[in-house]
Amino acid sequence: MFLDKLHHIKGIILDIDGVLTDATVLVTETGEQLRRFNVRDGYAMQLAVKRGFKVCSISGGKSKSVVLRLNSLGITDIHLGIDKKLDVFNSFLEQHALNAGEVLYIGDDIPDVPVMKIAGAAACPADAAEEVKAVSMYISPKVGGAGCVRDILEKLLKVQRKWFDAEPSAHDDSIPSA
Amino acid sequence: MFLDKLHHIKGIILDIDGVLTDATVLVTETGEQLRRFNVRDGYAMQLAVKRGFKVCSISGGKSKSVVLRLNSLGITDIHLGIDKKLDVFNSFLEQHALNAGEVLYIGDDIPDVPVMKIAGAAACPADAAEEVKAVSMYISPKVGGAGCVRDILEKLLKVQRKWFDAEPSAHDDSIPSA
Amino acid sequence: MFLDKLHHIKGIILDIDGVLTDATVLVTETGEQLRRFNVRDGYAMQLAVKRGFKVCSISGGKSKSVVLRLNSLGITDIHLGIDKKLDVFNSFLEQHALNAGEVLYIGDDIPDVPVMKIAGAAACPADAAEEVKAVSMYISPKVGGAGCVRDILEKLLKVQRKWFDAEPSAHDDSIPSA
Amino acid sequence: MFLDKLHHIKGIILDIDGVLTDATVLVTETGEQLRRFNVRDGYAMQLAVKRGFKVCSISGGKSKSVVLRLNSLGITDIHLGIDKKLDVFNSFLEQHALNAGEVLYIGDDIPDVPVMKIAGAAACPADAAEEVKAVSMYISPKVGGAGCVRDILEKLLKVQRKWFDAEPSAHDDSIPSA
Repeated sequence: MFLDKLHHIKGIILDIDGVLTDATVLVTETGEQLRRFNVRDGYAMQLAVKRGFKVCSISGGKSKSVVLRLNSLGITDIHLGIDKKLDVFNSFLEQHALNAGEVLYIGDDIPDVPVMKIAGAAACPADAAEEVKAVSMYISPKVGGAGCVRDILEKLLKVQRKWFDAEPSAHDDSIPSA
Repeated sequence: MFLDKLHHIKGIILDIDGVLTDATVLVTETGEQLRRFNVRDGYAMQLAVKRGFKVCSISGGKSKSVVLRLNSLGITDIHLGIDKKLDVFNSFLEQHALNAGEVLYIGDDIPDVPVMKIAGAAACPADAAEEVKAVSMYISPKVGGAGCVRDILEKLLKVQRKWFDAEPSAHDDSIPSA
Repeated sequence: MFLDKLHHIKGIILDIDGVLTDATVLVTETGEQLRRFNVRDGYAMQLAVKRGFKVCSISGGKSKSVVLRLNSLGITDIHLGIDKKLDVFNSFLEQHALNAGEVLYIGDDIPDVPVMKIAGAAACPADAAEEVKAVSMYISPKVGGAGCVRDILEKLLKVQRKWFDAEPSAHDDSIPSA
Repeated sequence: MFLDKLHHIKGIILDIDGVLTDATVLVTETGEQLRRFNVRDGYAMQLAVKRGFKVCSISGGKSKSVVLRLNSLGITDIHLGIDKKLDVFNSFLEQHALNAGEVLYIGDDIPDVPVMKIAGAAACPADAAEEVKAVSMYISPKVGGAGCVRDILEKLLKVQRKWFDAEPSAHDDSIPSA
């Protein structure tokens, strides 16, 4: 079911805290917030961008660290301080001329639920809120910040035959070195 | 028993280290202390404030990072460097005209025990000290800093029918967007 | 056996990395090293100092963060950059007129082994090196930086009836507030 | 099989993210990336250098923190921002007049696969990518940044009888104090 849905996906929207991070913020004595990202997630995100997927990230938070990390992976469409994720979802569809069924959404908490109910494919980390699990087509065995995005994007790329072949053939010219 | 007690709760007092954090401090070479907070805890704390609960935080430590993090969640009643938590508890009752039975206390270590024995509802994370578990009405399956506050506040808000409905109805005008 | 040995302990020597910390260092781009300490460990260490135990810390590393953290807990006898821990052990005995049998040593890795073989009581975290476990009288179920020092010092203080009573009686005047 | 291969090893190549670290980066609001290293890994790496092994580290990333950490362990041959790890592998062989069968490679993700297929011994952490596990002769029970390098180097040094003896004999003059 979930794998079937992935065949049609052209766009990816990722929640940040609890999906790309481990749901914690490390706070300094001046109030700076540090977030923990996973490099194996990053590897799959970079590859998805190279493969031509439209990738966007939405967060209720406002941390600049998020922008800097995502930019380094080739993701520039980042929406911070978002109250209503549905608005960003609709703009994303319009901007890229996609319909809802062509978008994969990965979220972990209640503000993600309205979008997850209409996205073409909805997935979440193992430690997502119960309300999110209830509307997810796929619950990754990995928790947020520890490979759930890698796990889900790897499934997407493999279904569409766009994952790295560990043993690339001479014909596989389009595969970027990474 | 614990759920019954929650019906009467109007005020919430949260210990910081080991409850809102994972009981660790990350120390820089200049002695700055960084603390790790959980965003899913933060979500429930923000909601509790919006729902009208009086929320207060007490710590034996003195880290400014705590103040900055809690302020960002709408919590301004913060007591640091507290030796006797019972004094703060009594001031809290007086300030908000509450009785002890109307307060939920979440603690994890021995200095929390005296207050937990008289609070209306007492709960702790899975990794609390044995002495604390012995006086807790509810031991969360989650450890400190990894969702124990979310777990407990979610129970409180659900019992009082103040939790977010994942599918809010048109009648639910009082639910803030988050 | 281990508990019997604890009756005679008057001094405590703690290794730092992997015992007081989780055996990791977080490295910034300028080479600063941040270390993670546990506040529940800190609580027991403060109490041990107040109860009159001589407490000393030894490390092969040289991080200032260690000094700042330990000072805040009342521990001032700190030896960094130590190649031969046995030398510090002998100085510690001389300085406090203790014999080896009166010292509890907590270590986690091979450089700790020579001292652990002659200390009155030797204990280690659950994730210590095999060589260390082989010479430990007690292996804590807790790992380094996640409560192994709390677990071991709690045993020491309880055996000597110097642990906090969760319900202090009126006669217990010597118990400091904490 | 893996242990047999270790008899011939003279050089060691270590991937960084996910092998020497826990596969996460902690990002500050100015974009600085902090990486978490394990001191027990560091102990084994220092010992390998002292025992005369050629040690080199390769990463696709570019963080200066890596250089500073590795330098402090006596490792100066560090290659950052590497797209094709095979090129570095070949240079390493040439520089030290080694053949591929004399090199142990520890990696965790897809860019490591081509080198791992030709190295004399290939090992990975418990949380490596499936493609990496498929070409590893040994999968450590430890995850990246939590002792997998210690586990693997300890095996190497023990097989070659170069590991620290916890009880060094008088004949063991070449063992450095550490």
